[in-house]
Amino acid sequence: MFRPEIKVLDCTIRDGGLMNDSYFTLETVQNVYRALCEAGVDIVELGYRNSRKMFSPTKFGPWRFCDEELLKQVVGDHKCEDTKIAVMQDAHKALPEDLLPKEQSVVDIVRVATYVKDVDKAIHLANNAAALGYESAINIMSVSHVLERDLDEALQQIEEETQVYSVCIVDSYGSLYCEGVEYLINKFRKFLKTKELAIHCHNNQQLAYANTIEAIIHNVNYLDGTLYGLGRAAGNCPLELLIGFLKNPKYNVRPLLDVIGKEIIPLTKQMTWGYTIPYMITGMLNRHPEAGLEMMRLPPTDPDAHDYATFFDRQTRLAD
Amino acid sequence: MFRPEIKVLDCTIRDGGLMNDSYFTLETVQNVYRALCEAGVDIVELGYRNSRKMFSPTKFGPWRFCDEELLKQVVGDHKCEDTKIAVMQDAHKALPEDLLPKEQSVVDIVRVATYVKDVDKAIHLANNAAALGYESAINIMSVSHVLERDLDEALQQIEEETQVYSVCIVDSYGSLYCEGVEYLINKFRKFLKTKELAIHCHNNQQLAYANTIEAIIHNVNYLDGTLYGLGRAAGNCPLELLIGFLKNPKYNVRPLLDVIGKEIIPLTKQMTWGYTIPYMITGMLNRHPEAGLEMMRLPPTDPDAHDYATFFDRQTRLAD
Repeated sequence: MFRPEIKVLDCTIRDGGLMNDSYFTLETVQNVYRALCEAGVDIVELGYRNSRKMFSPTKFGPWRFCDEELLKQVVGDHKCEDTKIAVMQDAHKALPEDLLPKEQSVVDIVRVATYVKDVDKAIHLANNAAALGYESAINIMSVSHVLERDLDEALQQIEEETQVYSVCIVDSYGSLYCEGVEYLINKFRKFLKTKELAIHCHNNQQLAYANTIEAIIHNVNYLDGTLYGLGRAAGNCPLELLIGFLKNPKYNVRPLLDVIGKEIIPLTKQMTWGYTIPYMITGMLNRHPEAGLEMMRLPPTDPDAHDYATFFDRQTRLAD
Repeated sequence: MFRPEIKVLDCTIRDGGLMNDSYFTLETVQNVYRALCEAGVDIVELGYRNSRKMFSPTKFGPWRFCDEELLKQVVGDHKCEDTKIAVMQDAHKALPEDLLPKEQSVVDIVRVATYVKDVDKAIHLANNAAALGYESAINIMSVSHVLERDLDEALQQIEEETQVYSVCIVDSYGSLYCEGVEYLINKFRKFLKTKELAIHCHNNQQLAYANTIEAIIHNVNYLDGTLYGLGRAAGNCPLELLIGFLKNPKYNVRPLLDVIGKEIIPLTKQMTWGYTIPYMITGMLNRHPEAGLEMMRLPPTDPDAHDYATFFDRQTRLAD
């Protein structure tokens, strides 16, 4: 599959940061950044640019804030022209003043993540970023669990009120099947006549990569992935699979394999992500992974840690 | 998705037995069997009926041979009318005399697994099983890595020379993408006008479940899965996902979740299966997983254990 318009975004540090409160060593982030540059990945999202008023800096690590000085240390003398740097702002957890003007920043792209209900906040932040000179984008979270009328209205607003270059379909619950992906792509495209579409999948049902391929087939050009799938709960579309699939000659999977062995595998000792039964259950039931995360925090010796039938019963009752 | 013709086959003990030389306790197999019955799974494959002349009974566990007395202990007083029992014979590792006449057996179905080159042996075994009163089926292994002319000829032979009820597309290397699945389904159907098609996927590229859905979409009715994906190397299509997807009211996912927690999760301490980078590399390169299995056997402290770039280089050179 080679379509020159395709752009791949790695969000290992950003989405993976949801599993370790955004604590990664500077060395890990530097090595990840360099590997992504070498692999020809188009965009790397290095974390959140969220507000210290809403996140305590004593509780959260540096990649929740992505201070400019820190990002400059990541880039060092290796600023790679072909790999843009992105940060994410949460619509309800970030403030416009968290951004410097573009010329004082190594950041190229600000992506604003929002629930449909917060779309006005998201538009405000995206327009703020654009006014400061950044490329801006909006991610619509939890798309599988939203009222269609509200979604339609939000998309219409984004089309009319922003200059974002892309809008991302975010399957936060990992509950979409391929036909749901196609349905949402058609809907997004109907409203967003002047924007590119993006896709960001979670792997609760082991469909993150397959759904990303489905999006490629339906001409979505902006694709999110993470190294070894590192991301919240069941994690994301594995970047190494995506790059292995895309036949664009500018991509090279080898540096990704290398950095996975050196930086990501060691993290498996501290954090657990990927397909498990609790995440499968929340995904199948189209629910937020929080209950699954809570179950996964139980020590393996806890008698409830693998009592999946009871967990399923409880989740099913909640879904009634 | 509800199509009454769909039949689901669980091969947890059979394919998972490739990761532990077919050593499972009788209690585990009993509990798996009962859960599958309760879940409404149509067929359970309890292991291989291979020859003691070709496998040493001191090196391999009882589920490599599936003696009748053993299978009777599995079933006990719980023989479930709606869940048929299958065993697998390898075309090049089993003998006709390994089967008793059907009336002396609790086995309903004999599946013969074959490489294309051994199709004559497979036909001989399948016809032997049919003559003894069993339903018979043939699995074509490593379909992603076979010369098309040889495959066409094998399919034509199976169509003309056997009474098998189904022929299975086996993606042994886990290297097929959805369009490859569709291509093979069309080819198999062209030759096999009187047989049902089946699909058996491996998860090297996290596509085992997605490719099984692709097969369902293209009217394949016989679907293989295993509990929590337990199977060789990257494992198989997770049965719990498949049953969660199928809307046939006779299926019930809850007993599967329960037995995964009680019987399959404890096995993760003794065996490692599922998506890893070595298996991803062999899958992407359309190669047998053996080199990946070898790398996965290295202790985690071995400096080569996560040197994926070197492994990739070696595999790529081999593929030249």
